[in-house]
Amino acid sequence: MTTDATEARVDRPIRLGMVGGGKDAFIGAVHRIAARLDGRYELVAGALSSSPEKAQESGRALGLKDDRIYDSFEEMAKREARLKGGIEAVAIVTPNHVHYPAAKAFLKRNIHVICDKPLTSTLADAKKLAKAAEASEALFFLTHNYTGYPMIRQARQLVEEGALGKIRVIQVEYPQDWLTVEQHNKQAEWRTDPARSGLGGSVGDIGTHAYNLACFVTGLTASSLAADLQCFVPGRQVDDNGHVMLRFDSGARGLLWCSQVAPGNENNLKLRVYGEKGGLEWHQENPNSLIFTPFGEAARIITRGGAGMSASLASTTRIPPGHPEGYLEGFANLYTEAADQIRAHQAGKQVASLVPGIEEGLSGVRFIDACVRSSAKNAAWMQLE
Amino acid sequence: MTTDATEARVDRPIRLGMVGGGKDAFIGAVHRIAARLDGRYELVAGALSSSPEKAQESGRALGLKDDRIYDSFEEMAKREARLKGGIEAVAIVTPNHVHYPAAKAFLKRNIHVICDKPLTSTLADAKKLAKAAEASEALFFLTHNYTGYPMIRQARQLVEEGALGKIRVIQVEYPQDWLTVEQHNKQAEWRTDPARSGLGGSVGDIGTHAYNLACFVTGLTASSLAADLQCFVPGRQVDDNGHVMLRFDSGARGLLWCSQVAPGNENNLKLRVYGEKGGLEWHQENPNSLIFTPFGEAARIITRGGAGMSASLASTTRIPPGHPEGYLEGFANLYTEAADQIRAHQAGKQVASLVPGIEEGLSGVRFIDACVRSSAKNAAWMQLE
Amino acid sequence: MTTDATEARVDRPIRLGMVGGGKDAFIGAVHRIAARLDGRYELVAGALSSSPEKAQESGRALGLKDDRIYDSFEEMAKREARLKGGIEAVAIVTPNHVHYPAAKAFLKRNIHVICDKPLTSTLADAKKLAKAAEASEALFFLTHNYTGYPMIRQARQLVEEGALGKIRVIQVEYPQDWLTVEQHNKQAEWRTDPARSGLGGSVGDIGTHAYNLACFVTGLTASSLAADLQCFVPGRQVDDNGHVMLRFDSGARGLLWCSQVAPGNENNLKLRVYGEKGGLEWHQENPNSLIFTPFGEAARIITRGGAGMSASLASTTRIPPGHPEGYLEGFANLYTEAADQIRAHQAGKQVASLVPGIEEGLSGVRFIDACVRSSAKNAAWMQLE
Amino acid sequence: MTTDATEARVDRPIRLGMVGGGKDAFIGAVHRIAARLDGRYELVAGALSSSPEKAQESGRALGLKDDRIYDSFEEMAKREARLKGGIEAVAIVTPNHVHYPAAKAFLKRNIHVICDKPLTSTLADAKKLAKAAEASEALFFLTHNYTGYPMIRQARQLVEEGALGKIRVIQVEYPQDWLTVEQHNKQAEWRTDPARSGLGGSVGDIGTHAYNLACFVTGLTASSLAADLQCFVPGRQVDDNGHVMLRFDSGARGLLWCSQVAPGNENNLKLRVYGEKGGLEWHQENPNSLIFTPFGEAARIITRGGAGMSASLASTTRIPPGHPEGYLEGFANLYTEAADQIRAHQAGKQVASLVPGIEEGLSGVRFIDACVRSSAKNAAWMQLE
Repeated sequence: MTTDATEARVDRPIRLGMVGGGKDAFIGAVHRIAARLDGRYELVAGALSSSPEKAQESGRALGLKDDRIYDSFEEMAKREARLKGGIEAVAIVTPNHVHYPAAKAFLKRNIHVICDKPLTSTLADAKKLAKAAEASEALFFLTHNYTGYPMIRQARQLVEEGALGKIRVIQVEYPQDWLTVEQHNKQAEWRTDPARSGLGGSVGDIGTHAYNLACFVTGLTASSLAADLQCFVPGRQVDDNGHVMLRFDSGARGLLWCSQVAPGNENNLKLRVYGEKGGLEWHQENPNSLIFTPFGEAARIITRGGAGMSASLASTTRIPPGHPEGYLEGFANLYTEAADQIRAHQAGKQVASLVPGIEEGLSGVRFIDACVRSSAKNAAWMQLE
Repeated sequence: MTTDATEARVDRPIRLGMVGGGKDAFIGAVHRIAARLDGRYELVAGALSSSPEKAQESGRALGLKDDRIYDSFEEMAKREARLKGGIEAVAIVTPNHVHYPAAKAFLKRNIHVICDKPLTSTLADAKKLAKAAEASEALFFLTHNYTGYPMIRQARQLVEEGALGKIRVIQVEYPQDWLTVEQHNKQAEWRTDPARSGLGGSVGDIGTHAYNLACFVTGLTASSLAADLQCFVPGRQVDDNGHVMLRFDSGARGLLWCSQVAPGNENNLKLRVYGEKGGLEWHQENPNSLIFTPFGEAARIITRGGAGMSASLASTTRIPPGHPEGYLEGFANLYTEAADQIRAHQAGKQVASLVPGIEEGLSGVRFIDACVRSSAKNAAWMQLE
Repeated sequence: MTTDATEARVDRPIRLGMVGGGKDAFIGAVHRIAARLDGRYELVAGALSSSPEKAQESGRALGLKDDRIYDSFEEMAKREARLKGGIEAVAIVTPNHVHYPAAKAFLKRNIHVICDKPLTSTLADAKKLAKAAEASEALFFLTHNYTGYPMIRQARQLVEEGALGKIRVIQVEYPQDWLTVEQHNKQAEWRTDPARSGLGGSVGDIGTHAYNLACFVTGLTASSLAADLQCFVPGRQVDDNGHVMLRFDSGARGLLWCSQVAPGNENNLKLRVYGEKGGLEWHQENPNSLIFTPFGEAARIITRGGAGMSASLASTTRIPPGHPEGYLEGFANLYTEAADQIRAHQAGKQVASLVPGIEEGLSGVRFIDACVRSSAKNAAWMQLE
Repeated sequence: MTTDATEARVDRPIRLGMVGGGKDAFIGAVHRIAARLDGRYELVAGALSSSPEKAQESGRALGLKDDRIYDSFEEMAKREARLKGGIEAVAIVTPNHVHYPAAKAFLKRNIHVICDKPLTSTLADAKKLAKAAEASEALFFLTHNYTGYPMIRQARQLVEEGALGKIRVIQVEYPQDWLTVEQHNKQAEWRTDPARSGLGGSVGDIGTHAYNLACFVTGLTASSLAADLQCFVPGRQVDDNGHVMLRFDSGARGLLWCSQVAPGNENNLKLRVYGEKGGLEWHQENPNSLIFTPFGEAARIITRGGAGMSASLASTTRIPPGHPEGYLEGFANLYTEAADQIRAHQAGKQVASLVPGIEEGLSGVRFIDACVRSSAKNAAWMQLE
């Protein structure tokens, strides 16, 4: 029983604000559940929409007090920073182009930031944000949420311990199908608008998740890539399918596929890693198990909380094996680990953490940027600068 | 995006108390997460252990105020009933034999009860509790949590709509392996002690879940059964494996297997239903899809939130298809639906609900009782009285 | 590469006759492919139908010489027994009620018999055939073909070696859906006619396969059973669904389900065996792997020809791992092993063999008989006499 | 029952010779089983090894008459062509570099050729062989055996009928793990020797299968590709892992991965095709089903012989659904279809056929050649010339 482990850490909840995530938004509600799941945060303030009307309506619907509902993130940052009992952390869940200005506003006031991915919509913004984070006393967390899955932690640990030997080949893919035809809902619109989403379409929205996951598990970073991006749906301004060949510093090679036009795929993120001594395979849609094959032996099915899982990962899971955990629990792991870090930081301590931050964010935007540059040059090899 | 649906219902959280669920307990923490997930409850009081010391310690660890931490459920029931701002509902998560007295204490004071399964440890208690519930103005909910899974709701709806035709055959099984050898932890101990667990071992702990699920999906109730229960681990006082043949009023027949000694099974609950026109299959360990085969056609994989799911089930899921939900979300669905009912009840209204209650609880204890009686008579057919 | 193993045994093919298996038959063609696959038999004679006209037509279509095409098995038995270069073995692939007289006719003349299952359509016939086989110098083989699958051999070996410890629980099932509605083809007609099929319907046609497989893998035999057989399709004269509780001499218990009315199941034979130390699981529809879980460890996927398979099983597979073998190869294994035995017998030698024979046949008919008797007495426990 | 369909075509078996396939060979035995399975061929002659001693020994082991066992294919071609009752067709199953001279020798004498893939070890040889085939009256078949699987035929038909709409994206992969470490058996040795295998390693041995399958199912041909080939095992002279980006004439794009160093993969060939209206997915290791998802609908599991399979494919399968067929049956389909063509050709008729031939062989060698050239130029785009 691992439930005690997560709850035992509970002290007073962290006062949280939110930028974005109002009515019709998707990822905001996910962040709120993730924050709430282990009882480590209390949502007390919000600038939930760029439309003041919607911001008010959404704030009230979430039970925020009137004077903690803001029409803009600037206003919220300024006032909360001065408020006794103001927010300790803020979740930024807006379209990509707002990440940079919003994060900067809070970092400047030493309010901890939990920001959705990708870090920013441009590489220039990403570099500026990295500097802002460095200059701030506050912590910065990036919700590459798939890194919160217990079996992804197990995979990382297997690689780290050398169970796979030196890594040779990485296969990672993230196909979806929801943009197979033109869509006119809010989610589709900003994601296919380069001004809000950034130059990458599928490569920015989900390719960057796939790339992050591959790096997280293997501990490697790509040095160069060749990308062939396509836009299949007429009139769309960003890519909806991408093929990327990767070369890593260590000599490992990879293949990455992302797509939003692959019928039959919902969020079919899959990672496979092969080394000199073994291989592993994980599927996001069935995240509670991990296949590990030591070369020359029968494959093993390692299950979340089961006999094959490392005891050191107990704090990443809440319920016994065979009772599935999912996306929200993985997401919540990042929030809960961020809470641990925030409390430690407030106490003048440091705790080790696997929650992605500025570095991973910068790496992700570099990946997107290199993909777009490479594809524009007929899939020439590009350094991830 | 279905997230709005759940959150839009949010108003002031329901004040919740808890009986049981202190340190080293398992299911208490699950109930707390389920209550918290959609923000519909606030835990404000607890009698968390039958040991006063542990009750105090556990209450403080959960952040309860000192005067809301009780040493016994009786004390909590009495005081909270009189308290302005006292609890509106209580979650009972003790070993089985405490369900009856605890539930009675709160029902008597018209405090809504959310009780873990099985209803009670004896059929006599179950009948008395049914009367207590009838006499009370409060609502009674039983957390047969697997009924909260969206794809189980989908399965039920397919049967109800006639997509399978008249039901002929039900196959349901719930194998585990954790009691393959003797265990000495708290969870194992009370579950294998007839005084606390009731006469059924595996059949009471998990067989009753399997039976409930079969009835929930098909709308049928067994009229008689023949059970062959075994106790494989030497010294154990209750069954750890059970084989049950079922006959339903409608003429349908079923087979039920429950086991705690089947190595390789974690919580491998599986339901299959076959009718004159089609069949369906669902696995708890991978709960986000449902296989439905209309006779004479290719099987279809219906996914949670996907194209094949009924739009009327939108409120049972929080995130888009392909991002898995699990055990906690299904459990939370019952809590959230109970919250809807409680608020409606307080407003003098009624809302339809699929959350199991007294009737399902009574039916479950009848099932256990009949299994034990049948097995004692060499698997003779017994009516579910 | 194991191909050499099977082919290296090739010498002159065995001269084979066939009874039944003419036009519109199903299993006859399967036997012919199985006989041909490893090149160990040559079909040279046939009494392929009880209709002389169809017998002639079918014989010519298969390229038999005119004087080796017979109108009846009696005629074939008599003449071939006297013929120089007459058949050495005969395959009997008729409806069940013909198995006994046909087998007897050939056994009497010391021609080896390869007979389809079940052994006979009545228990009385089965006992007489057992005596006939004992009295004959010829060998008798029964094509319980699923025993020929390499991973079933692997499963048997794991049990035999004690990898599962003492067996406690056996779950076996064989659901199909082809008789969900009334059918009027030849296959359906004789299988639902008690005069030709025997008293068992689904229990005789496929339940007996399931029972045989459970016994083959575990080495156990049931001492008693309780069966609840149903006939769901109106007008059908034999059962089309059966639920059976099994008790084995050793104390193990089992559950067996067979059905021909379970939409979505083609030939979904599945076996699971659980012991004190581990469990295993095998699916006929995906027969190239076997899941083995030592209690307290991660499950292992043992693949046909892969690293986890026993080297001693090399002769049961023809191609490398990952290239699937199927039903015909498993069936062919029995034919090829029978050929080894026949050649050894002709040379005055004996070879160990796992091919089922009279004993397994008798055991199967006893199973069917006990199921029918039990069901007629409201699922009372019956000894397998 | 589809068995009649295959056997009804039986007439006198075709007299077959074999080049290669002696002791210790792998694919020769597979060809022999495939030829034998439907009874359409009789092996009567062989030049089974380049070592005369082994050729003699192997021929005798296979029961060939002494005067039909040859020490070289030249000798066999010459003598059989003159022999009354000489071979009508020859199977060439040697290492790649012998394909060209051997095939030429038989084509020149108008003996039909069934040749293993890839067509030749060099592009120059492939072009010469194409001319030789054109000049011959004999037929030429190339055993890209995966095209023989019934569900691959079903996939092709779905694409052809427009069920997927215009094809956008193709994902194909063929990972193995047997060369993860250095191997010293016969199979490994010639496959990693460029003189015998050709310049491609994994890309020639299995990448070409993957490419062929993608083209077979979609009806498309790649116009250009960019390949990043690696050789991970020290000292190996050819690639053991390859990443290839594909561009098709139609505008479709593809990604192809082949590997012999991916632990946990046996012969894990997998094809996924996505179009404007739907997607499909097929796994060679579980070849009896095909997942087809019309966009916006639930995925469908089409099974071999099941309700969703096209009736026109009945002749590609021998047994009812749910009884798995595998690699040998798919391989046999090509042999049987080649037999139909040979007999038709001998009768002066033509029959439509899906068996790959010279054109597909040439296309495959062009693919290998372009991969090797591209990789040598740092994965620059290369035309498939």
